Amino acid sequence: MAKPNVLIIGAGGVAQVTAHKAAQWNDELGDLHIASRTLSKAQAIIDSVHEKSAMKVPGRFEAHAVDAMDSAAVADLIRKTGAGIVINVGSAFVNMTVLQACLDTGAAYMDTAIHEDPEKICETPPWYGNYEWKRREAAQKAGVTAILGVGFDPGVVNAYARLAEDEFLDQIDSIDIVDINAGSHGRWFATNFDPEINFREFTGTVYSWQNGAWQSNRMFEVGRKFDLPVVGEQQAYLTGHDEVHSLSARYPFADVRFWMGFGDHYINVFTVLKNLGLLSEKPVKTAEGQEVVPLKLVKAVLPDPASLAPDYTGKTCIGDIVRGTRDGKPAEVLIYNVADHKDAFNEVGSQGISYTAGVPPVAAALLIARGDWDVKRMANVEELPPRPFLELLGQMGLPTRIRDENGDRPL
Amino acid sequence: MAKPNVLIIGAGGVAQVTAHKAAQWNDELGDLHIASRTLSKAQAIIDSVHEKSAMKVPGRFEAHAVDAMDSAAVADLIRKTGAGIVINVGSAFVNMTVLQACLDTGAAYMDTAIHEDPEKICETPPWYGNYEWKRREAAQKAGVTAILGVGFDPGVVNAYARLAEDEFLDQIDSIDIVDINAGSHGRWFATNFDPEINFREFTGTVYSWQNGAWQSNRMFEVGRKFDLPVVGEQQAYLTGHDEVHSLSARYPFADVRFWMGFGDHYINVFTVLKNLGLLSEKPVKTAEGQEVVPLKLVKAVLPDPASLAPDYTGKTCIGDIVRGTRDGKPAEVLIYNVADHKDAFNEVGSQGISYTAGVPPVAAALLIARGDWDVKRMANVEELPPRPFLELLGQMGLPTRIRDENGDRPL
Repeated sequence: MAKPNVLIIGAGGVAQVTAHKAAQWNDELGDLHIASRTLSKAQAIIDSVHEKSAMKVPGRFEAHAVDAMDSAAVADLIRKTGAGIVINVGSAFVNMTVLQACLDTGAAYMDTAIHEDPEKICETPPWYGNYEWKRREAAQKAGVTAILGVGFDPGVVNAYARLAEDEFLDQIDSIDIVDINAGSHGRWFATNFDPEINFREFTGTVYSWQNGAWQSNRMFEVGRKFDLPVVGEQQAYLTGHDEVHSLSARYPFADVRFWMGFGDHYINVFTVLKNLGLLSEKPVKTAEGQEVVPLKLVKAVLPDPASLAPDYTGKTCIGDIVRGTRDGKPAEVLIYNVADHKDAFNEVGSQGISYTAGVPPVAAALLIARGDWDVKRMANVEELPPRPFLELLGQMGLPTRIRDENGDRPL
Repeated sequence: MAKPNVLIIGAGGVAQVTAHKAAQWNDELGDLHIASRTLSKAQAIIDSVHEKSAMKVPGRFEAHAVDAMDSAAVADLIRKTGAGIVINVGSAFVNMTVLQACLDTGAAYMDTAIHEDPEKICETPPWYGNYEWKRREAAQKAGVTAILGVGFDPGVVNAYARLAEDEFLDQIDSIDIVDINAGSHGRWFATNFDPEINFREFTGTVYSWQNGAWQSNRMFEVGRKFDLPVVGEQQAYLTGHDEVHSLSARYPFADVRFWMGFGDHYINVFTVLKNLGLLSEKPVKTAEGQEVVPLKLVKAVLPDPASLAPDYTGKTCIGDIVRGTRDGKPAEVLIYNVADHKDAFNEVGSQGISYTAGVPPVAAALLIARGDWDVKRMANVEELPPRPFLELLGQMGLPTRIRDENGDRPL
C-alpha cells in the first residue's frame, strides 16, 4: 500500500489536533504538510508535535504559507508537496477554493464543516446544495474522493445514523443528534471557538427536517431535556447544523433534528448581546464618528478560545438517538461518544471540542489510504461504510458506545 | 425687586425642562439666555419654548455658543448677557469652569450634579471635598451665591431632610433617600439619560455614610424592598450618589444612604455588559487592529434617551425616609414627590426624570431673586430654608407630600 502523503490546510485549534493525530499515524500516511496564511502558526503546530514526540516513525512534517482562498496557489502546493490527500480544517470560507484545487490535481479532499460565504448568514436549505454538491459531478468525472463534513458533528454522527440503519433498525423514523458539552472552562463567559463564528451560528433561522419538509424556528425557541450517559440530564435546543442538510437527503421519510446543549447563562448572555444589537455584523457609528462592527468588538473583549484549553475540565457527550422499527416493533438506539477535555489537552494540547472535530478526518485519511473509503467521488459520511471508520476511531481515542434495550456497551 | 436675568448652560434633556420653566416664570427672572457648545441645540430648545407659548410675559430668550470648559469664555458670556444667575445644567465635567466664571463676574451659580473628572470614576469621599468645596472660601470672599446640587436628587431630597429636621424630628438617626422610576419606556432596554454617564454611575464603589464612617459596597450588593405611595412595593439597591456626600457633613451622627430602584432586567443587562468588559472606558483592540472604547459602542447601539420621552408612561416616586426621635420617642416620616412621565412630556416635551431634575434650579433662581436664598456664599441645599423652596416647587409642578403616623397628606 502506497503512502498517500497528507496536506493539512489551517492552523487553528482543530488543525492542531489533526496534525498531532496525523503524526501519530505517519507510518501509514507518509509525508505530512501543514499550510496556513501565517507560516508561523503552522510552524508552531509542528513544534508542538515534536515537543510531544508525536511522530510515530521518523518522517517529514513541513510548514507552508498559503492563501487558501487562492485555488491555484493551493493546487501548486499540492503538486509541490506531492500530497495525495488534503485535509481542509481551515475557515469555513475556503472550502470551495480548496476543493477546486483537489479536483484540478486529483488529490483526495475532505473538510469538517460546510462552506460559508462571509457576507451571508444562514442560507436556504439544503446548505450543501448551495456550494459543495454543485461540484459532485465534477468530482465523479475527475475520479476524486471528496468526503464532506468528516469532523465529529457533522461526520461521526452521520456514521452513527448509518450504523443504526445497517445494524439496528429496519426502518428509521427519526434521528435526533445531541451535542452536549458538560465541561467547564472556569471563565465567567467564553465561547469554545471563534466568537464571531460561534455567534453567527445562532443568529439565523434554525432549520430542521420534519414531516418531510424544512421547518423554521428561532434559536432557543424549541428546548428539550435529554438524559444521557455520563453527563446526565441536560437541556438542549433545536439548532441549525450541517448534518441535517445531508441526512435529510438520505432519510427523507425520517425527522432529522440537531440539538445543542446550552446553559441558562450562555443563553442569557447571548440574548442580551443580540437584543442590544451587539452581535450585528453591520457597522454602527459612535457619537465620536467612529465606525465599529459590534460583533468584532465583542470578539475582542471575550477570552481567546485557545486560552481555555489548559483549564478545561469535564466531558462532552455527542450522539444520535435513532428511533424506528425492528421486526415490526418500535425500537430505539443511542449511539454516542464521551470525550474528556483534560485528556485531550494532555495528549494534543487542545480542549475536547477541538479534539472530537480534529481526529475523525485523520481516520478518514487512513481509510482512503487503506482503500475502504477510496470511493473516487464526492460523498457525505453517511454514504460510506461506518464500521471501519468507527472501529478505527475507537483505536484513535474516540470510542463509540451503544445504549439500547440491551444495555449500555462499547461498539 | 430687580429682575436678575438668567443664563442656562447646557442643551440636553434637563436644560430643556429648565428653559421651559424659566420661560413660565420670566416675569420674575427677566432676560433668558441658553448656551451650549452647539448653537443649534440651544436654539432648538428656545424654538420648543415658543411652540408651547411658554413665555409668561414677552421678553428675551437668546441662544449662544460657548465651550463651557473655557472659564474665560463663560465669564465673557455672563458679562455680555448681563446674567445675574447662571444655571449650570451642562455635563458633569464643566462645573468647576462655570463656577469660576461666576466667582470672577459675581453672578450667582447653581448646578444639579457633582463635578466629575472624565478620566476618573468614583473618587474618594466626600466627593464635594475634591472639587466644589475647595472654592467655598473664594465664594464667601466674592460674596457669590453658589447653590450646589439643586436638582431633585441631589437637591429637593436634601431639602426634605432639612424639613424633617426643622419640623418633624428632634433627633435624626437615619436618612434613606429612595429614588424609584416606576415608568415604562416600552423598549427592550434603554437608559433614562446618557448611557455613558448612567453606567459610569454604577461601575465604581458604592459609598454610604453609616455608623459615623464611610462604608464601601459594590453596586447591587445591598438590596432592600420599599413600600411607597402610588408606585407600591419596589426593590431598590444601595447606590453611590452626590447628596450622601453633603448630608453626611450636616448629619454626621445619622446614617445616610441612597437607594435606587432597579428591575431585574436592568441589573441583568448591566451585569452581562460589565462582566464582559463592555462598560470599560479604556480602549480595546479588535482582531483587525481597530481601537475601540467599549462603552462608546454600547452607547451607540442603545436608544437615544431623548427618543424615549414621547412613549414614556407611568410615574416616579422620590423621597426621604427619615427616622429618629420626637419627644423622646422613636418617630419616622416619609417626605416625597410623585411625578408623571406623560404629564411632563405634555408640558415641556421631556420625560419625568428630566422634569424632576430641571424644575428645582428654576425655583432656586426665583428664591435668589426674591432674596430668600440670596446667601452670598456657597451652600448645599440642606443649609438653606426648605419651606419657601418646597412651597414654590408645589406651585411649579413638583408638590411635596408627607406620610407619617398621621397619614398621607400634602405639605
